[in-house]
Amino acid sequence: MARIDVNCDMGESFGRWSLGDDLGMMPYLTSVNIATGYHAGDPPTMRRTVAAALEHGLAIGAHLALPDLMGFGRRRMAVRPEDLEDYCLYQLGALDAFIRSAGGHLAHVKPHGALYVMASQDPQLAAAVARAVAKTGTRVPLMLLNRDTTDAVAAEGVTLVPEAFPDLHYDGSGDLIIEPIKRAWDPDLVAGRAVRMVLERKVEANDGTELDVEALSLCLHGDAPNAVDTAVAVHAALNRHGITLTPLADLVAAP
Amino acid sequence: MARIDVNCDMGESFGRWSLGDDLGMMPYLTSVNIATGYHAGDPPTMRRTVAAALEHGLAIGAHLALPDLMGFGRRRMAVRPEDLEDYCLYQLGALDAFIRSAGGHLAHVKPHGALYVMASQDPQLAAAVARAVAKTGTRVPLMLLNRDTTDAVAAEGVTLVPEAFPDLHYDGSGDLIIEPIKRAWDPDLVAGRAVRMVLERKVEANDGTELDVEALSLCLHGDAPNAVDTAVAVHAALNRHGITLTPLADLVAAP
Amino acid sequence: MARIDVNCDMGESFGRWSLGDDLGMMPYLTSVNIATGYHAGDPPTMRRTVAAALEHGLAIGAHLALPDLMGFGRRRMAVRPEDLEDYCLYQLGALDAFIRSAGGHLAHVKPHGALYVMASQDPQLAAAVARAVAKTGTRVPLMLLNRDTTDAVAAEGVTLVPEAFPDLHYDGSGDLIIEPIKRAWDPDLVAGRAVRMVLERKVEANDGTELDVEALSLCLHGDAPNAVDTAVAVHAALNRHGITLTPLADLVAAP
Amino acid sequence: MARIDVNCDMGESFGRWSLGDDLGMMPYLTSVNIATGYHAGDPPTMRRTVAAALEHGLAIGAHLALPDLMGFGRRRMAVRPEDLEDYCLYQLGALDAFIRSAGGHLAHVKPHGALYVMASQDPQLAAAVARAVAKTGTRVPLMLLNRDTTDAVAAEGVTLVPEAFPDLHYDGSGDLIIEPIKRAWDPDLVAGRAVRMVLERKVEANDGTELDVEALSLCLHGDAPNAVDTAVAVHAALNRHGITLTPLADLVAAP
Repeated sequence: MARIDVNCDMGESFGRWSLGDDLGMMPYLTSVNIATGYHAGDPPTMRRTVAAALEHGLAIGAHLALPDLMGFGRRRMAVRPEDLEDYCLYQLGALDAFIRSAGGHLAHVKPHGALYVMASQDPQLAAAVARAVAKTGTRVPLMLLNRDTTDAVAAEGVTLVPEAFPDLHYDGSGDLIIEPIKRAWDPDLVAGRAVRMVLERKVEANDGTELDVEALSLCLHGDAPNAVDTAVAVHAALNRHGITLTPLADLVAAP
Repeated sequence: MARIDVNCDMGESFGRWSLGDDLGMMPYLTSVNIATGYHAGDPPTMRRTVAAALEHGLAIGAHLALPDLMGFGRRRMAVRPEDLEDYCLYQLGALDAFIRSAGGHLAHVKPHGALYVMASQDPQLAAAVARAVAKTGTRVPLMLLNRDTTDAVAAEGVTLVPEAFPDLHYDGSGDLIIEPIKRAWDPDLVAGRAVRMVLERKVEANDGTELDVEALSLCLHGDAPNAVDTAVAVHAALNRHGITLTPLADLVAAP
Repeated sequence: MARIDVNCDMGESFGRWSLGDDLGMMPYLTSVNIATGYHAGDPPTMRRTVAAALEHGLAIGAHLALPDLMGFGRRRMAVRPEDLEDYCLYQLGALDAFIRSAGGHLAHVKPHGALYVMASQDPQLAAAVARAVAKTGTRVPLMLLNRDTTDAVAAEGVTLVPEAFPDLHYDGSGDLIIEPIKRAWDPDLVAGRAVRMVLERKVEANDGTELDVEALSLCLHGDAPNAVDTAVAVHAALNRHGITLTPLADLVAAP
Repeated sequence: MARIDVNCDMGESFGRWSLGDDLGMMPYLTSVNIATGYHAGDPPTMRRTVAAALEHGLAIGAHLALPDLMGFGRRRMAVRPEDLEDYCLYQLGALDAFIRSAGGHLAHVKPHGALYVMASQDPQLAAAVARAVAKTGTRVPLMLLNRDTTDAVAAEGVTLVPEAFPDLHYDGSGDLIIEPIKRAWDPDLVAGRAVRMVLERKVEANDGTELDVEALSLCLHGDAPNAVDTAVAVHAALNRHGITLTPLADLVAAP
């Protein structure tokens, strides 16, 4: 029986500014990745988002980012691995304080935006993030693209969990094409890609290439204009095809 | 036999900018308060300062601040208590991750600059800081001026620890007079005030008033131009008068 | 014949975050106050907002703020007058570069949020803002509440222009009651208050007190959920009552 | 008769943190590049540095940077050219307000740190900076490495001024090797390299390659531990070899 986790980035408001319909998305997910202040997510937003996620029974991950509020963490920065490790541990500790004080526990870690792409490509950066995860004393999995960094992450005692993105384009070499501002995608198109990613383990790249997909989780973007419609469509399509939505922890073997 | 804790703010560098001779001060202290990123203290600085403090066998506290890098946390801001609580928990979690990953534990909490003064005067703000401390699941003491906020802190299950400032002026009503840039004070003057604070429990205010001092810890400022000279003088004078430097935890009864 | 300027704060987006329907509001205004980066308004937002305002033939003012992105400039901070003057000149210069390069000129200055209230109450702070305005070499008017600071502003060679707020509550002493998040107000209620402010020069405070209104401009809030509806209603009501919408410069005598 | 401009980065303090001995360096320079808030330089620092530079009769340039306080602008960021142009115009306007209100005028523009390297390598980024310069309505020269970007800058109506760095290493392809923290260099070594750069138009790269130097200005680093000693040595050596220190404006033909 096919199973998959469905995760979404959350808590990406900041002060006066709101982003995404977090409460609208939560019923259709199993995991959330909560922003930790570096690209988005002021502390009151973190507290509220953690509380809502726990009410919905969702697994909570830390959505770690580069220090770039103005660029929303979507621009590559040439951070040194040792600095990145410290930035990640800072953000992990901060979010974990909110999770634990609300009665939950950190379930996974997922880099955001440019850091996600950078750490999926550069084993040194992936290892730096993994070391920060290991320093928390937990053994939670680290979501990244399943590329050349799996071994670097494993060497730090952390399990890399590959995920797939039904609402993002891939290029022919399997790299994600990040949109500066997430546009609306057709919900049925996304749902169809999601089902195919799980059942056939395939996705079509922008240039027509058929890419292999190895994913334990599907990521949906909450900041698209029609994000909730898409989540509803994906949730319904997965159910319709007999795919069970399953929290990531139940899909990952302990390292 | 008289005993006293001696604490100092540390880790107040940020990125390219250095401040204070932390390593020079550490031999003369029992406790340090490490900046947590809101007024100073980027993550690499936090990591390095935690490591050095543990090497020197010092108790580590979180030096929580208002979000004001440009003003170094020395300007009052009208933060709401609920926001302040979240800001404090964020900073506590972040620092605690560095402390625990280095094999230590959080020993106390001390607000910085304007937040210190505000929380020493306003029971609602003191309670907000105390709630954040309680949310960490530890019962570490909270350093503040011993004013009207002791009960508000105790109501949250946290012990307020009064401290005194041999290298700062007090006004006639017992309020601290914060210098925007810490100037050099005569080390012997500071040492004399420190000894008197412990043995006579008195300090003279700027207007000549004799103020009562009730303190379990003495705070020295590491950002004065002659900070290490002052620390050496205070340390020597305390020893000379038979006063034992004692970590705060040994002076505080558990709540 | 009654005349009034109608102004609105604009350009309060930041990076990934959008706020307000600036383009929807512009047809109903004569002046805009554009955020300058301290509480909102990253440089690309400043450029785009300036361009749109010039296309709509609107007078452009600088919306100066305290350095508090997380609090959206809505929290009082104890800034020293000399620092405030520098902060204001920095923001004025930055915005002016965008205005001049787009072929316009700075027409007025208006402090934002907590700075607006602080500078309307404290002559030292009002004078600091006015000095920054004078340093730009222009003699543009400074919008503030017409309180005790008019003389302090005039002493710096700058004209204080009083404005009124049809979509904000006043307390019995004439102080504004700032909402942390602007709620929707009934458009007809706001329009009625606006007309009365112009024709009768009166507004009713929250406690029922009748307050005198002396205003050359009416401020509408663009971040209310129904901001455009309110602007349409105010614009229509002013027209219906024969009140001419007039840019501020035509209403202010040169100093 | 050989002539050369000598410039130095200045005003790189921020709030509580001081950096560099600006007043100690100024007597030995002809130009200064003043930080504009993105990597360093809060507004009070900008005002004070502008005033001191004018007192010393120095030409003032804008030291434009990437938005990265924590990394001091020394890390590459993948900014889009259109965003970079806006960031530069923002900083130019802000600094220019301080310069003009103090009775001076903007004399040149020089990118800082990673932006300097990026704009010296990428014509699109160089053009973006040049467009911001052109938008100020002045025709001040833009300091960059004289590489492949001269034409891109000229196409925007701005003159690229090449400079050389006697206190930095070059690699064999002529790229600068930026030190995260500037170390002390032997003053006589720097002075010898400076003289050779002017008279022989050569410098030796790290790998022994002899590089051609085409420079109208020499840059000294004020944040080295022995920066003033080095400036004194360079100044004396240039004088000793009959080289006239000349403000950049007198060396550049108007475009």
